[in-house]
Amino acid sequence: MSRKPMVRPGGRSARVQESVHRAVRDLMAESGREALTVPLVAARAGVTPSTIYRRWGDLQELLSDVAVERLRPETPPEDHGSLTADLTAWAGLFLDEMASPAGRAYIRDALLGDPDGRNAGQCSAYAAEQINVVLARAADRGEATPKVEMVIDGVVAPIMYRILFRPIGIDDAYARRLVTEVLGSNGSEDR
Amino acid sequence: MSRKPMVRPGGRSARVQESVHRAVRDLMAESGREALTVPLVAARAGVTPSTIYRRWGDLQELLSDVAVERLRPETPPEDHGSLTADLTAWAGLFLDEMASPAGRAYIRDALLGDPDGRNAGQCSAYAAEQINVVLARAADRGEATPKVEMVIDGVVAPIMYRILFRPIGIDDAYARRLVTEVLGSNGSEDR
Repeated sequence: MSRKPMVRPGGRSARVQESVHRAVRDLMAESGREALTVPLVAARAGVTPSTIYRRWGDLQELLSDVAVERLRPETPPEDHGSLTADLTAWAGLFLDEMASPAGRAYIRDALLGDPDGRNAGQCSAYAAEQINVVLARAADRGEATPKVEMVIDGVVAPIMYRILFRPIGIDDAYARRLVTEVLGSNGSEDR
Repeated sequence: MSRKPMVRPGGRSARVQESVHRAVRDLMAESGREALTVPLVAARAGVTPSTIYRRWGDLQELLSDVAVERLRPETPPEDHGSLTADLTAWAGLFLDEMASPAGRAYIRDALLGDPDGRNAGQCSAYAAEQINVVLARAADRGEATPKVEMVIDGVVAPIMYRILFRPIGIDDAYARRLVTEVLGSNGSEDR
């Protein structure tokens, strides 16, 4: 069972989370992930190790939380004027970010310290939110749009599967082809 | 870096692997995964803990190896007389196995103790082999067939992605729909 609270904490709790997350990011940048320990993170964050154990359970759950924060998109997808252009641009960026060494490490961390699947679900929710922005914009333009779950299956899933299980042919042309197939063959169908 | 040898070992090495794997499976069945430790596994397998550390590095890498063995298909896909029937049946079984509690635990174990991605790649290779059997049989019948990578993207990837990241709507109808889309829209195209 996870020890993480269901809601985003406020007040002191939020300050502890922010300082612990920052300590993890700083120590990773300085010394690499292999050198991380809960006592080191606690010392850097100015909290006791037991604060970390109580809140996160162990180092892996803490790293999972930090990874999900790093995978949170910072801006909405850019508007390039059409569904095809928007989705192609977004898929290319998504692939670049996720397939980068840092992205792969975050995906891995997010999955590993996540016994109840909440953090993995959050990663998927981030992608769905971004796709929904693209689809809503296209609908406002009067374009036919696929369902978000279809874009998840046709674009997000193959990219993430290949990154984790089958790391071949993951390039920009691949992302473009996935988008073309989703929009070309089923773009306007209900599902 | 993994300490696993590149080739399947023979002789004493193979016997050690078999007895250690069996000890892991037995102890998991008896006491659950949480109770597993390297000394416990070593005692049950009749080897020293240092044999395990030398060969597998740590418990997580050992569990990853055991998981991949458990995910190895035992029989080729059944012949139901047509590509659609064969692929639909295979996808349904694949989904059932992977989405079961045991399957999820094995997928998770396979990914976690797998720093170089070799075990994840083996999981994907197993799926590709099974699909290749289905496709070769269809080609022998004179049916038009998609490329194996297209079936990976269209059927295997969405199933695995949803199991890991988005555990909603993973049922037999979902597997059937994925197969219908892969065969329907692109079944005979080159790719």
